[in-house]
Amino acid sequence: MTEPRYDTVSFLTDYGTADEFVGVVKAVIRDLAPHTTVLDLTHEIPPFDLRAGALALARCIGYVPGGVVLAVVDPGVATVRRAVAIEVAGGAGVIVGPDNGLLAPAVAMAGGADRAVELTNAEYQLDAAGATFAGRDIFAPAAAYLCNGVDLYDLGTPVDPSLLLPGTIPLPRDDGDDLIAEVLWVDRFGNAQLNVGPDDLPTDWGSLVEVVIPNPTDPSDATHTTVRTATRATSFAQLAGGAIGLVLDSYGMLALAMDQRSAADELGVGPGDQVVLRDLGDPTPSVTAVEFGRRPQ
Amino acid sequence: MTEPRYDTVSFLTDYGTADEFVGVVKAVIRDLAPHTTVLDLTHEIPPFDLRAGALALARCIGYVPGGVVLAVVDPGVATVRRAVAIEVAGGAGVIVGPDNGLLAPAVAMAGGADRAVELTNAEYQLDAAGATFAGRDIFAPAAAYLCNGVDLYDLGTPVDPSLLLPGTIPLPRDDGDDLIAEVLWVDRFGNAQLNVGPDDLPTDWGSLVEVVIPNPTDPSDATHTTVRTATRATSFAQLAGGAIGLVLDSYGMLALAMDQRSAADELGVGPGDQVVLRDLGDPTPSVTAVEFGRRPQ
Amino acid sequence: MTEPRYDTVSFLTDYGTADEFVGVVKAVIRDLAPHTTVLDLTHEIPPFDLRAGALALARCIGYVPGGVVLAVVDPGVATVRRAVAIEVAGGAGVIVGPDNGLLAPAVAMAGGADRAVELTNAEYQLDAAGATFAGRDIFAPAAAYLCNGVDLYDLGTPVDPSLLLPGTIPLPRDDGDDLIAEVLWVDRFGNAQLNVGPDDLPTDWGSLVEVVIPNPTDPSDATHTTVRTATRATSFAQLAGGAIGLVLDSYGMLALAMDQRSAADELGVGPGDQVVLRDLGDPTPSVTAVEFGRRPQ
Repeated sequence: MTEPRYDTVSFLTDYGTADEFVGVVKAVIRDLAPHTTVLDLTHEIPPFDLRAGALALARCIGYVPGGVVLAVVDPGVATVRRAVAIEVAGGAGVIVGPDNGLLAPAVAMAGGADRAVELTNAEYQLDAAGATFAGRDIFAPAAAYLCNGVDLYDLGTPVDPSLLLPGTIPLPRDDGDDLIAEVLWVDRFGNAQLNVGPDDLPTDWGSLVEVVIPNPTDPSDATHTTVRTATRATSFAQLAGGAIGLVLDSYGMLALAMDQRSAADELGVGPGDQVVLRDLGDPTPSVTAVEFGRRPQ
Repeated sequence: MTEPRYDTVSFLTDYGTADEFVGVVKAVIRDLAPHTTVLDLTHEIPPFDLRAGALALARCIGYVPGGVVLAVVDPGVATVRRAVAIEVAGGAGVIVGPDNGLLAPAVAMAGGADRAVELTNAEYQLDAAGATFAGRDIFAPAAAYLCNGVDLYDLGTPVDPSLLLPGTIPLPRDDGDDLIAEVLWVDRFGNAQLNVGPDDLPTDWGSLVEVVIPNPTDPSDATHTTVRTATRATSFAQLAGGAIGLVLDSYGMLALAMDQRSAADELGVGPGDQVVLRDLGDPTPSVTAVEFGRRPQ
Repeated sequence: MTEPRYDTVSFLTDYGTADEFVGVVKAVIRDLAPHTTVLDLTHEIPPFDLRAGALALARCIGYVPGGVVLAVVDPGVATVRRAVAIEVAGGAGVIVGPDNGLLAPAVAMAGGADRAVELTNAEYQLDAAGATFAGRDIFAPAAAYLCNGVDLYDLGTPVDPSLLLPGTIPLPRDDGDDLIAEVLWVDRFGNAQLNVGPDDLPTDWGSLVEVVIPNPTDPSDATHTTVRTATRATSFAQLAGGAIGLVLDSYGMLALAMDQRSAADELGVGPGDQVVLRDLGDPTPSVTAVEFGRRPQ
């Protein structure tokens, strides 16, 4: 007999909630490990969008309670990609999902993989009518049995953690006086998180930053480049009168933001789009805050 | 040591579910107070819509179990609006959220505030990378620690309950023979709840009511006024043949409704729109029920 | 005193999540039966769509844990349709909802009804302001009291299980060499599940199947008939280069599918649409897999 080991399964997918996929996975977990609570992170990762899923999981990982993290964005379901479980933080947590890069940033943020296993032991899987719902048939049972105290290595074949597929989060890069950045995420409120931490901006930059957004389909097309001035701020409410801000967001990254409006809509940017930042120094005393956001024309 | 005091956190926001915001708040609560269950009321209040949030919370408050109610619609996050916790019903419940009017109708329906506190004690908050996610960093820990038995006043600075920001729910008003009403809420099925209780209609009104909907952009524009006849009903199925009904809804308010169709779409009304009601007496015996809903032309 | 009998309520509706309906039902259950966990299957059945609700419930029923299943798609709320609770599987489960065909396929898949009751006992219902929210006022209390150990027959008037309204799931039919099928369900990923099990295809059919989709508004209109070749496959990834597959889905039914694309969009089909299948034998050796999916022109 095993002793229950974990009592929380934090759960992220691209399943959406219109179908019963999420509910069925949770039903399987509750059936096999009734003592556990499933904590939904989000299920609205765009279908098959590994990058969006990996970034969302990485944003969550510092906040989830100890236990199992189950993440499924799986364009290659039922093919050669491996189904894996990865022990992190000295066994405080296990991250379960496909080995396709989805899990890698979260694993790294949790301190790296201690042990990993490919989920090959059919004894800990459901018999499947068809091979296309690994969340229900392979991943959910793995999460449940881990909660029940089954050892990681009992779930299948040990995998060298260094051979897990790495994820790629793009780094900003310097180009002369410019910082070439990228939009990582646009949230419900239209804030556009950049791949830029506060330490990535040179310390001698002022409070005004030029934001240049090339035509995404033709970066050399200067006539359709968007150029705006953003002001560095610590809260949305500092951005009065429609100003665009460069705000330290709640995850410690810089985001293009507006006060109660969508900066992403205003600037026409989405995840993956390039954004070039340039120092504009500090405002001269005669310029009022309200004018910072005006279109420079 | 404190003893656990509450085991339910009822949770309402405008966060949506596409991002992981709701999941991260729940992760923080589970991490700090693992014995609690979080009960999602809704997270799809339109972004920043304080009125819709306040009305939804007021509709829920009579049904939530004892414990903590956490509500966040917070256009002024990280500004001067206060973060508060409000004890109600002799300590049976605590309502946590921003002091911006969102909580006031629910507090009133719960019998008024017994004690209130501004959430200023950093000891019961998370260290934040940025100041824009109060739900995670301030409100979730407050909810969790209250569940754990921490006293309200330990969370910060006591606030005189009479100084909390009031909410405003519009009252219907008489205008001669007319009752000037307003749409409070349109639900998924297209029922348009009015700010009219059954006692607001004069007792001598008949079963037929004229519904006049002015042009929302120009109320004096009579040529674009919608005029329809509604029949008072107690179930949707009484509204055969496309009739519009004035139905006592499940919250005890009158709502414009149709059978398996959207009355709001049919009438072109949304939350906040004005609706004028006029008595049309009772139908003459030669008129059959099916004809009540015909367009009067 | 009764002893708690069930600790899970699996919950499916057409309520959506924009309103607080789901939250209020769960609040009522938690208030009356705090030891239970509510497991959301889905709440995004299209409004009033009994067929979609019945099919989704039937897909779930083999996976839900023992306990109560609460399903509400209820176009006839507050009319003559009965509110019922149906005991199945020797008492391992009780299915609660309206007697309008929604529950019938799930009841059948659970082995048929052992006992049934019409929910007429007001002692186990909430006092309602209006009669339009049976989920909150009738069904939620029934689910909660069943979890608390109240006997089925205490909830109201026994009903002869053979008199419950049957559901109808359409069967495929042979028409000469054709199999006339129907789309049951289109999931988030665009897979179009047919009402065809693997045993419904004649054993002498090859791996290529012609898919004929008549003009839904005029089946005799041959000029707007869609004709494509599908290849039988066991995983999406076998469908390289935009091929359309006939895949054994995770519920054991055949589905029209593509690799990381929506087959339903590609073919222009939705739930209820007719699909005619015809044997095309096996590919000749000179035909490569990539060409299977090409439009036959």
